[in-house]
Amino acid sequence: MRQSKLFTKTIKDAPKDEVSLNAQLLIRGGFIEKLAAGIYSYLPLGLRTLRKVQSVVRDEMDAIDGQEILMPALTPKENWEKTDRWDNFDALYKLQGVNKKDYALGATHEEIVTPLAKKFISSYKDLPMALYQIQDKFRNEVRAKSGLMRGREFSMKDLYSFHVDEADLDSYYEKAKKAYYNVFQRCGLKAYIVEASGGAFTDFSHEYQVFTEYGEDEVYFCKECDRHQNKELVEKGEIKCPYCGAEREVKKAIEVGNIFKLMTRFSNPFNVKYVDKNGKEQDVIMGTYGIGPSRVMGAVVEVHHDDSGIVWPEEIAPYKVHLLALGNDDKVKQESDNLYEKLVSAGVEVLYDDRDDSAGIKFSDSDLLGLPYRVVISKKTLAENQVELKKRNEEKSEMVNLDKIIDTLK
Amino acid sequence: MRQSKLFTKTIKDAPKDEVSLNAQLLIRGGFIEKLAAGIYSYLPLGLRTLRKVQSVVRDEMDAIDGQEILMPALTPKENWEKTDRWDNFDALYKLQGVNKKDYALGATHEEIVTPLAKKFISSYKDLPMALYQIQDKFRNEVRAKSGLMRGREFSMKDLYSFHVDEADLDSYYEKAKKAYYNVFQRCGLKAYIVEASGGAFTDFSHEYQVFTEYGEDEVYFCKECDRHQNKELVEKGEIKCPYCGAEREVKKAIEVGNIFKLMTRFSNPFNVKYVDKNGKEQDVIMGTYGIGPSRVMGAVVEVHHDDSGIVWPEEIAPYKVHLLALGNDDKVKQESDNLYEKLVSAGVEVLYDDRDDSAGIKFSDSDLLGLPYRVVISKKTLAENQVELKKRNEEKSEMVNLDKIIDTLK
Repeated sequence: MRQSKLFTKTIKDAPKDEVSLNAQLLIRGGFIEKLAAGIYSYLPLGLRTLRKVQSVVRDEMDAIDGQEILMPALTPKENWEKTDRWDNFDALYKLQGVNKKDYALGATHEEIVTPLAKKFISSYKDLPMALYQIQDKFRNEVRAKSGLMRGREFSMKDLYSFHVDEADLDSYYEKAKKAYYNVFQRCGLKAYIVEASGGAFTDFSHEYQVFTEYGEDEVYFCKECDRHQNKELVEKGEIKCPYCGAEREVKKAIEVGNIFKLMTRFSNPFNVKYVDKNGKEQDVIMGTYGIGPSRVMGAVVEVHHDDSGIVWPEEIAPYKVHLLALGNDDKVKQESDNLYEKLVSAGVEVLYDDRDDSAGIKFSDSDLLGLPYRVVISKKTLAENQVELKKRNEEKSEMVNLDKIIDTLK
Repeated sequence: MRQSKLFTKTIKDAPKDEVSLNAQLLIRGGFIEKLAAGIYSYLPLGLRTLRKVQSVVRDEMDAIDGQEILMPALTPKENWEKTDRWDNFDALYKLQGVNKKDYALGATHEEIVTPLAKKFISSYKDLPMALYQIQDKFRNEVRAKSGLMRGREFSMKDLYSFHVDEADLDSYYEKAKKAYYNVFQRCGLKAYIVEASGGAFTDFSHEYQVFTEYGEDEVYFCKECDRHQNKELVEKGEIKCPYCGAEREVKKAIEVGNIFKLMTRFSNPFNVKYVDKNGKEQDVIMGTYGIGPSRVMGAVVEVHHDDSGIVWPEEIAPYKVHLLALGNDDKVKQESDNLYEKLVSAGVEVLYDDRDDSAGIKFSDSDLLGLPYRVVISKKTLAENQVELKKRNEEKSEMVNLDKIIDTLK
């Protein structure tokens, strides 16, 4: 992409009404734009990163036999009444359409996926089954001040699994844990698995928490036994680990995913049963697994930035390379155009700063946008038939021959 | 994809409450599932087709310099008040969140994209600019009985263009017409451009209409001069063409897209101006361009089907090839598995019916699902080291050598 064609521009000053660092940097870089509290538009660079996070998630869900579907956001009241959540689910947006028909905006989709799955489950041969979608969710949050980390509308991947018994759910739950680990690692996040409340049906659910001083959650972190707990589980002052007795550290954290054994919480109200090998009807056992791709994007910015801007991990950067042409020299323009075309042909994702701006503006924009590799062409580098190559997350730069740079970046 | 792993199954009888042919066939094939009137879930096969339609649209929008963004569905009342549409836009879903904040669910996005674009427009150098998104829209339709063709929640591509003057808008409008023609052609639809009401600002808008007896619209079709008109423009009984005087035919049609010169209808209320070459402030001129990918999908089914099922055009079929293994013979299973793996490796999209079902079920499911190429392997074909190849839209089949079939299908 030629930057001269990109409609967004960087903004010098952070917007005053945004207190969170992720929103400040993402808005200044032109990745997102704020429409209202907790509600953002994704602009071209931000949409590319969001899609890459979603694509990592999709990969890993496909790898554990998830089948992708897409459920509506407009969901009928009846479904929520069946599970007693119409009045009891916090933060449900409700609205009424023609014929006084009531809907909730999908805040989660157990109420929709369970009766959907029921239509295709009759025998044990139909199980296990795992369905997921990637879609915007809506939550009527009282406070929405953390940028992409707590939105009123936000991107969500929700996976639901259906099993013949608890043992099969347990084995799938472990697979999902590994898939989640892969997702966060590929997105450049070190996420810890943390015990959280399990509701009435199971001991614990599990959250994936990323430690950062800007986090909204508090985690009791045990260095000895690797079993960490969300604050909500911890009795006042219970600083020692209940498993190994070690002292624990209280850390601020961002929740980027959660997994939950639902057991029969939703299959019962919708009467989802299967016929087992002996011809006997049995309850279907369920699990639910969530990751917020937009929240992951926000968390990545909270974790990966410096004073000059964002430092995108390579797999989710909007482009891999930022090519900067410095000065108005004709030869620089020509060689930069050339290199740009060659990189595109070689399949390298490159943002090409071909604007008529000063070197100062180009360098500071480049740091703010945070693409992994910066390639600078100037009269000076061309005198040696070279370009300057610098990684965003390293201080040092190196000179690379023009005819070697494409292979280096491929 | 192995069909034995696919969680959906075909359904023998059309659902009783679905009157439209597209919904009947798509539900019977397991492409979509109805959640409520006008509200559908996309199941794996249906989601693949929807994504392919969206991808064709994306291609063609990128080709006319559209920059993809993603705006929220939850849109503040203030934006709609500015343009006087909070009370005057038909079928707007409205809801209230915390702090008595009112929102509309996005039914169209002029009210959101215009102030967004304003932030990045100051000079004539910033224009023209074209922004688009592909996203679910919401409309509180009184009647929602046409399956994917008139939904309460549906997929929409909306493009908005911004120009220095009417001449520039006109030239972009012609480019968009060609792009739209390409989209419909690639999706297998013959769409006619039809004049419709232009509102207060321009003579006409233009609709893309596909003729089918199941259509909800009526078009006055002129065979002589190629200028057709929507019924809404035609005075009662005015059967003759106002341009050439020829007799016109009244045809049922489905609207699959529309384009509209907005002029300053939205830039004025949001005060979107630019500074021209002479330093003078001028109004920005706008156009808007819509295509409904889910509606296109419904229209394709209305147009391309026979008594046995759907006949997908190749570019938007969920898979290109349906591989059917017939009988329980070990060699058939082994050769089919082999061929399936080879096709996948060769990059051919294939649905592999490896289920333990009868030839009758497999053939009738295959016709219903409507993939472009059917490949049958049986004991009989293998005796000659062959497979049977049949196109879904042709009666005849041919025998092809096992070692030639991959090259034939690539």
